[in-house]
Amino acid sequence: MTMQTSTEAVRQEFYDRLAEKDMAPLWAVLKGLLPNEPRSKARPHRWRYDDVRPLMMEAGALLTAEEAERRVLVLENPALKGMSRATATIYAGIQLILPGETAPAHRHSPSALRFMLEGEGAITAVGGERTVMRRGDFVITPSWAWHDHGAEGNDPCAWLDGLDVPLVQFLEAGFNEHYNDKNQAIIRPDGDSMARFGMNMLPMRAQSPYGLTTPIFNYPYERSRAALVAAAAGAAPDKHEAVSLRYVNPLDGGWAMPTMSAWMMHLPAGFETAPIRSTDGIVMCVAEGRVSTELGGERYDLEERDVAVAPGWAWRRFRAERDSFLFCFSDRVVHEKLGLWREERGAA
Amino acid sequence: MTMQTSTEAVRQEFYDRLAEKDMAPLWAVLKGLLPNEPRSKARPHRWRYDDVRPLMMEAGALLTAEEAERRVLVLENPALKGMSRATATIYAGIQLILPGETAPAHRHSPSALRFMLEGEGAITAVGGERTVMRRGDFVITPSWAWHDHGAEGNDPCAWLDGLDVPLVQFLEAGFNEHYNDKNQAIIRPDGDSMARFGMNMLPMRAQSPYGLTTPIFNYPYERSRAALVAAAAGAAPDKHEAVSLRYVNPLDGGWAMPTMSAWMMHLPAGFETAPIRSTDGIVMCVAEGRVSTELGGERYDLEERDVAVAPGWAWRRFRAERDSFLFCFSDRVVHEKLGLWREERGAA
Amino acid sequence: MTMQTSTEAVRQEFYDRLAEKDMAPLWAVLKGLLPNEPRSKARPHRWRYDDVRPLMMEAGALLTAEEAERRVLVLENPALKGMSRATATIYAGIQLILPGETAPAHRHSPSALRFMLEGEGAITAVGGERTVMRRGDFVITPSWAWHDHGAEGNDPCAWLDGLDVPLVQFLEAGFNEHYNDKNQAIIRPDGDSMARFGMNMLPMRAQSPYGLTTPIFNYPYERSRAALVAAAAGAAPDKHEAVSLRYVNPLDGGWAMPTMSAWMMHLPAGFETAPIRSTDGIVMCVAEGRVSTELGGERYDLEERDVAVAPGWAWRRFRAERDSFLFCFSDRVVHEKLGLWREERGAA
Amino acid sequence: MTMQTSTEAVRQEFYDRLAEKDMAPLWAVLKGLLPNEPRSKARPHRWRYDDVRPLMMEAGALLTAEEAERRVLVLENPALKGMSRATATIYAGIQLILPGETAPAHRHSPSALRFMLEGEGAITAVGGERTVMRRGDFVITPSWAWHDHGAEGNDPCAWLDGLDVPLVQFLEAGFNEHYNDKNQAIIRPDGDSMARFGMNMLPMRAQSPYGLTTPIFNYPYERSRAALVAAAAGAAPDKHEAVSLRYVNPLDGGWAMPTMSAWMMHLPAGFETAPIRSTDGIVMCVAEGRVSTELGGERYDLEERDVAVAPGWAWRRFRAERDSFLFCFSDRVVHEKLGLWREERGAA
Repeated sequence: MTMQTSTEAVRQEFYDRLAEKDMAPLWAVLKGLLPNEPRSKARPHRWRYDDVRPLMMEAGALLTAEEAERRVLVLENPALKGMSRATATIYAGIQLILPGETAPAHRHSPSALRFMLEGEGAITAVGGERTVMRRGDFVITPSWAWHDHGAEGNDPCAWLDGLDVPLVQFLEAGFNEHYNDKNQAIIRPDGDSMARFGMNMLPMRAQSPYGLTTPIFNYPYERSRAALVAAAAGAAPDKHEAVSLRYVNPLDGGWAMPTMSAWMMHLPAGFETAPIRSTDGIVMCVAEGRVSTELGGERYDLEERDVAVAPGWAWRRFRAERDSFLFCFSDRVVHEKLGLWREERGAA
Repeated sequence: MTMQTSTEAVRQEFYDRLAEKDMAPLWAVLKGLLPNEPRSKARPHRWRYDDVRPLMMEAGALLTAEEAERRVLVLENPALKGMSRATATIYAGIQLILPGETAPAHRHSPSALRFMLEGEGAITAVGGERTVMRRGDFVITPSWAWHDHGAEGNDPCAWLDGLDVPLVQFLEAGFNEHYNDKNQAIIRPDGDSMARFGMNMLPMRAQSPYGLTTPIFNYPYERSRAALVAAAAGAAPDKHEAVSLRYVNPLDGGWAMPTMSAWMMHLPAGFETAPIRSTDGIVMCVAEGRVSTELGGERYDLEERDVAVAPGWAWRRFRAERDSFLFCFSDRVVHEKLGLWREERGAA
Repeated sequence: MTMQTSTEAVRQEFYDRLAEKDMAPLWAVLKGLLPNEPRSKARPHRWRYDDVRPLMMEAGALLTAEEAERRVLVLENPALKGMSRATATIYAGIQLILPGETAPAHRHSPSALRFMLEGEGAITAVGGERTVMRRGDFVITPSWAWHDHGAEGNDPCAWLDGLDVPLVQFLEAGFNEHYNDKNQAIIRPDGDSMARFGMNMLPMRAQSPYGLTTPIFNYPYERSRAALVAAAAGAAPDKHEAVSLRYVNPLDGGWAMPTMSAWMMHLPAGFETAPIRSTDGIVMCVAEGRVSTELGGERYDLEERDVAVAPGWAWRRFRAERDSFLFCFSDRVVHEKLGLWREERGAA
Repeated sequence: MTMQTSTEAVRQEFYDRLAEKDMAPLWAVLKGLLPNEPRSKARPHRWRYDDVRPLMMEAGALLTAEEAERRVLVLENPALKGMSRATATIYAGIQLILPGETAPAHRHSPSALRFMLEGEGAITAVGGERTVMRRGDFVITPSWAWHDHGAEGNDPCAWLDGLDVPLVQFLEAGFNEHYNDKNQAIIRPDGDSMARFGMNMLPMRAQSPYGLTTPIFNYPYERSRAALVAAAAGAAPDKHEAVSLRYVNPLDGGWAMPTMSAWMMHLPAGFETAPIRSTDGIVMCVAEGRVSTELGGERYDLEERDVAVAPGWAWRRFRAERDSFLFCFSDRVVHEKLGLWREERGAA
């Protein structure tokens, strides 16, 4: 027996005795626990809506929304197969409701966001109020709020779902409950939340009915787009972020949701951003236009409704030939609240 | 000499010696310093626009806006003559700009608000951006922001001014500066502030260019009115406040200005509020409709554009035969920040 | 009649008609309302404790603490005679309690601070808890908290009082109430507040029992002095502020009181500050040592327990031959909250 | 082929095609993603210091602190073997420094806390300042702050380490850097942080040098213990929490660290708490006394320095025959910031 193996054997014997007492040597694993910089397990990826749509419609034929509870094709990061994750911490999927269907009312700790892709007549109800979801609308289901969806027109309705499910799983903080009917009771007229909270006015003693989440649950694309176009007219685009506006909670000016940050980036025709990276992992979807992007060294051309992901700390940059609008969401708000968010801005 | 007068004489002699050393006996003045409850020096009052308007027009003939720097009829509380105050802490006035005139650019520590009364083509510029002021609009001039006004249409333009001048005087914190030209330089297109800050979206790293004041400087009546009408459809009016929404700073959900609170009350046709009082002194102006009010025991019928004041801690109540909208502002935000605000809600 | 007088007469006649309708021409008073920079009505002043003390003892012979309710010699700014003000917004006084006396329990909207000057056995009770006040202690009576004082030793006890009475008067927000007994009921042991809130620990669901005011009501000099001496050892004094630490509310890190800022400045032996001015008006008292100061151009040598005032926007500077400690309070927190605080730092 | 298998086969074929396009059917996994209530992967466990100490000393003979970088026995939850986790989200370990050794300076995104167990002369340096760690002290290494440890006395020194490493790993936000020397440069005297930030006073313009983490990095046991004893004298213990005080950041009154909550519970002799559960997973260590506990139905008797864990949403209760002090930390602050924290209080 060499001295080398002898030392190793001695240590292993010690480690075995540690294991019996539910302990382990830190020095054997320290480097793995403390990498020099983040290396995401996720990798860059893009889902073409042209690929997704036929499969989504096939799912529509396979089972009803009610059977499925939620008829969603989960967008799984190729590096995280079987984990229901688009990024390291975020779940994303494409949800389909056919005319006349209902996705029954339930509520859960995970927060959900919707980014509307196609179809007239999509309805979602949150906390006793309904809203019509139109293409490009950013719609929110707050944590623990009752919600159900329907399609009241003649079109199949589809949207991009984003949830913080992996985060809630990691924190082991998830509750779930079914409503005792298919649809929740409607107690307020359409537009009530927007009127009370969304017009730069607030009730005299305002509190969100949804804890840390915005009381507005539909941010219409028409408004967001107009704001971005006007903002672009007022000042030169930012070198790294082009013209970006974040969706906010009117009660405090913070991000609209406590666990996911959402914003929209407007790339004026011909504009190209310089490379930037940040610790949050980003899911993005083209609302309008056509965006060429480099994500972690991979090049993708994104058509309307295509979805792509940029893993945390991967360089990203964007370019558009014509005026384009890119919806984005990530776990940035979590990194920020915990003091862990960093970004690096590269030269053009 | 009686014992009584002897004691008094002894004390007076002592008080005189105190005075020589710049001291005074607290016990002689304590009751005056600490009243059992507030008794405002101001009293309830109402200014009819029918009275104000001819005098305002006469002032228009008397001197130009530029000569006057600001051609304003100060609304003086009858109990505070010569003090340029409508309430104990707030200055109010009616400002007139004739077609083609300019009220030249300056800036000052006091914050100003405008509530637009009449005339097409009124313009105000704040921080390098212009806005058209339309009837019922609530417009803000933040503390220390350059501002100038003009009338570019064919109408005389008039609005209600509210300033925190008495507060700034009391705190001895006022600065004032003239711009080196009649109009400030315009560096952003119309609507830029509303686009960047007013659509429930914010820049990625949002900060108000105006310190504690909202970055939005025009809250259009059209929007505020629609919000109030929708809010009224969604829930029964509050017994004491009817349907009231406060103008807010989108960066933090707080009051739009750091020294004056502003809100609009919508009285649906036939609604009557129960009596309420609060420590703040309120200036109010009818935007639309006709409001009967009792302020500190005085009854007033308020027509459109009439202005009235409710002193602090005076009971107030309102009634409207037809749908009415009442613009209000007060020093409530100051009382709140300093832990001094109180209200009492009476029975119907 | 000259044209001049004719114009004047016309205007005066117009102004008279305005006055009848409770209006006034702004242009006639605008300059007075908006000075170019603050000019305090108060002026610099110093009260020698050697002058104050004999008069205070004489007041002790003149009437009892209970008769007086509060036996205090008000320190009146020579420029504000009869107004019970040391600065434009702050009341200050010297309070005396003789052995065995009680200043009976009451409560009021104005907040009070005490800076202990002399005597063993001084007691104050706040919100059901007593504290012994020792020389140099900074003690707080929050707005609307019951409080009574006593002297349980053999010494006359005296302290400097500071109240926001002029501010509460200006805002017309003052309430006052007498307790139905001389002393309030004591429901917690001495030191309870300090234990729960003052040791860098807080109750699991902490709220101040006193609204916006700190839950700690005695900041002992022993601690504050030690903190300042240690801080002086750790870094060079600030050129303008020497070594200054502010008393804070442990619940939020803000100023200890919502309407008055208090801090202590330590001047190491031989240190001289560069001139500085700020919009707040400051009352100061030497806790220990001897301080030479220039306030608004006036030179004063301050012995222990001497009180001086620096009006707002007056230049101030300090120098000490031996290690000195200067207690200061002002209306800075009010200026800050309202967006009105400014300072200017001069060259050495 | 039965109809059943036929349906299954059809679906499987569809699922295979989905997988090719990096998608998956949500309905097949939905129940697993949204449990009705939390079921922690961790389980209750206790490590006896009597078991840990000999193994720790054996590790001391096996390699030096410098060789190990950090000589720590990781406390691994028996249900999470190989994952370096005590709870679902928290790393815990026992660190040993022998006389004369140094654990070399480095910094990393994960935040660390230390709870001192034994030995005179333990030193830690953070951000250019040293502190002596005494038994029962709660010591903090903020995220990204340089830190090194040493033992300058004659004793082996040991403490409990707690880190948010699993959280930082999950968020993929970890950076790590080595100092270019064994010890960092010391630029401030001992006690400087406590003097500037810990005495209920703060610098005039206070900011934490450590972002969201408290500027105080040693909360001495002597102080914490005295606070708890005094608090116990002032009011009856809480039915579920006994006498608990949380360590706070003096700059904002929030938890001392942005990712881990820490508090100390004092159980007066004979006191028994009613059952309580919360979503956060808790690591606890007896500072003084002897505590009997039930954690998720398991009964443990905890001696001084024993460590135990209560998984999230497991019922817990405590009892002590003599006055006892229990140090606790958990991921509660993360749950709170994200709107996910819940607790349930049971009957006695």
